[in-house]
Amino acid sequence: MSAATIGPVRVVGTGLLGASVGLALRALDVDVVLADPSRTALALARDVGAGRPAGPDDDEPALVVVAAPPDVTAEVVAAELAAHPHAVVTDLASVKGHVLDELRDAGVDLTRYVGSHPMAGRERSGPSAAVPDLFLGRPWVIADSGCSDPGAVLAVRSLAVDLGAVPVSLAAGAHDEAVALVSHVPQVISSLAAARLAEADDVTLGLAGQGLRDVTRIAASDPALWTSILAANARAVRDVLLAVRDDLDQVIDALALADAAMGPETVAPGALATIASTVARGNTGVSRIPGKHGGAQRIYALVTVLVPDAPGELARLLTEVGEAGVNLEDLQLEHAAGRPVGMAQISVLPGSAAHLEAELTARGWRLVS
Amino acid sequence: MSAATIGPVRVVGTGLLGASVGLALRALDVDVVLADPSRTALALARDVGAGRPAGPDDDEPALVVVAAPPDVTAEVVAAELAAHPHAVVTDLASVKGHVLDELRDAGVDLTRYVGSHPMAGRERSGPSAAVPDLFLGRPWVIADSGCSDPGAVLAVRSLAVDLGAVPVSLAAGAHDEAVALVSHVPQVISSLAAARLAEADDVTLGLAGQGLRDVTRIAASDPALWTSILAANARAVRDVLLAVRDDLDQVIDALALADAAMGPETVAPGALATIASTVARGNTGVSRIPGKHGGAQRIYALVTVLVPDAPGELARLLTEVGEAGVNLEDLQLEHAAGRPVGMAQISVLPGSAAHLEAELTARGWRLVS
Repeated sequence: MSAATIGPVRVVGTGLLGASVGLALRALDVDVVLADPSRTALALARDVGAGRPAGPDDDEPALVVVAAPPDVTAEVVAAELAAHPHAVVTDLASVKGHVLDELRDAGVDLTRYVGSHPMAGRERSGPSAAVPDLFLGRPWVIADSGCSDPGAVLAVRSLAVDLGAVPVSLAAGAHDEAVALVSHVPQVISSLAAARLAEADDVTLGLAGQGLRDVTRIAASDPALWTSILAANARAVRDVLLAVRDDLDQVIDALALADAAMGPETVAPGALATIASTVARGNTGVSRIPGKHGGAQRIYALVTVLVPDAPGELARLLTEVGEAGVNLEDLQLEHAAGRPVGMAQISVLPGSAAHLEAELTARGWRLVS
Repeated sequence: MSAATIGPVRVVGTGLLGASVGLALRALDVDVVLADPSRTALALARDVGAGRPAGPDDDEPALVVVAAPPDVTAEVVAAELAAHPHAVVTDLASVKGHVLDELRDAGVDLTRYVGSHPMAGRERSGPSAAVPDLFLGRPWVIADSGCSDPGAVLAVRSLAVDLGAVPVSLAAGAHDEAVALVSHVPQVISSLAAARLAEADDVTLGLAGQGLRDVTRIAASDPALWTSILAANARAVRDVLLAVRDDLDQVIDALALADAAMGPETVAPGALATIASTVARGNTGVSRIPGKHGGAQRIYALVTVLVPDAPGELARLLTEVGEAGVNLEDLQLEHAAGRPVGMAQISVLPGSAAHLEAELTARGWRLVS
């Protein structure tokens, strides 16, 4: 595979994202020079193969990728534009409007700047967590500054494509509103749900099921990182949260009516309708999230199989799914707390479900269906 | 395996839960008679093997299991207590205080009544979705009425154990507060997050990642069912939601300060601290949710492996995990939208992670770590 991106590419900031960009470009034989204020991060990034440290005799870069923390990104972008007067400069910050505003306020010429945001990350951070495949199949937002040179936009798109990502063109403001909705607000909401458990007793927590685990999984995220992201996208996040609060207030008011009525059958009909419509709008929303192959999430049929909690059983199941000639689209394991059995939920194309169920039953698996 | 539960057991209400109770008891050779106001539901339950329809010549039941919708549960329990003066009567409704209050208000003698709630369910409903393993390994709350006969409590505990569940003793009010926290409020919160997506544009939704999918998964639940559950537990749910709203208001206020300050570096320190502490309290809460074997969720180490999206590859991976002598504690698949590769996150005991990583690397797997 040959890269469209022309080197040398200068990567400024060698944390998880910067080092992963370097690794992926090196795998395509693109020359990568690295810079980072932390000598340790720089040395680590070099050692994992993300490129070579920048030196005084380097050729001028064709492209600069700024992978700095969000609060210093604009400053670093401005410095790189000044230091490399022929290079295209992009940044990878997860909030785009704020960076663009700062650059505009500083009077920077934006023709060679194109903001971008690869929708990729990991639970671990730093150059030692870097992987060349980090961007594979992920959306990579390309945010034209409004006066970006078309050639500069093309260079950043090519970078995204070279790294296996799917470029998505969005203006900075539209990007920030979109990520507020699909990423930043869900993070806040997950944290709010999980925060309620901080002082719960153990018996209560022992009743937790998979639903609670799913809702709160991302609440394990790093507070410092998320504080900087949320602060940098404060307006868009707050707008969505205000709408969430309006919905929440309606549910709270409806529950007060239901409680006062001492029984659902005597509740004012409007109160129950409010609760039902909140849940129903949630149904609509979740049905619109695209799934694995770009279709709606719920196009797959679920086949649920009981799996003994013993080494090799899950592998045997999946081998036999393969032997049945059925492609597994998704797999989720559900636990049975303290019991020697689990449930594997296998997602398959709807046309394959009956065949798979018959095959697995014939092989002695116990289906939950 | 022989059952401690003595038949005949009369199951009133043959939806998912009632028919699953019948199926499980029949598998233990316990005599089960079924009753349901819907002749169709009754015939279906009989046809799936959940028991035989009740008839005029039946022996008196030793135990009656009321698996009716929550809003009619108290009425049905009272009728069954009156009709079967020697039977122990339990119900499976997901809210317990409301049922108990109604029975008390009606002046019913509660010595033979013991409320209960198996923490089990499926995305499908009705007798055709019934499975004998529905309760396997699940907590089953036993809610003594306060004047339940000890023998009656024992009979309901025995039912739970016979069906493979783990009995948990909780008073009705404590049960309702607990499920408000671990089940009902997370449902409302997930619905609120998903409802925001109902009118989002497709480009925005195309940026969705696994975090959003997790937070909103249970928002696909049935509005009618959840309206009746939430209305029946209105007070406890509302109390938790009021606390959520207080936290949400603090975040909204902090974001207003951050937005007004035009950049995180000039934000009043208190605003950022509020955001950081909300995320940090979420960290604490999620860390307290028990995992598969009853320990804290985060005791496992994660090994992440790139898996080609081809039949048999995941099975081969899991076979080789087994060959490495490592027990897989959990498995999660993450997709790469539109790309021929996925990531398998394998949870193992921390002491096994390094060994597993070495083994998989030696076998040619690409690790993300």
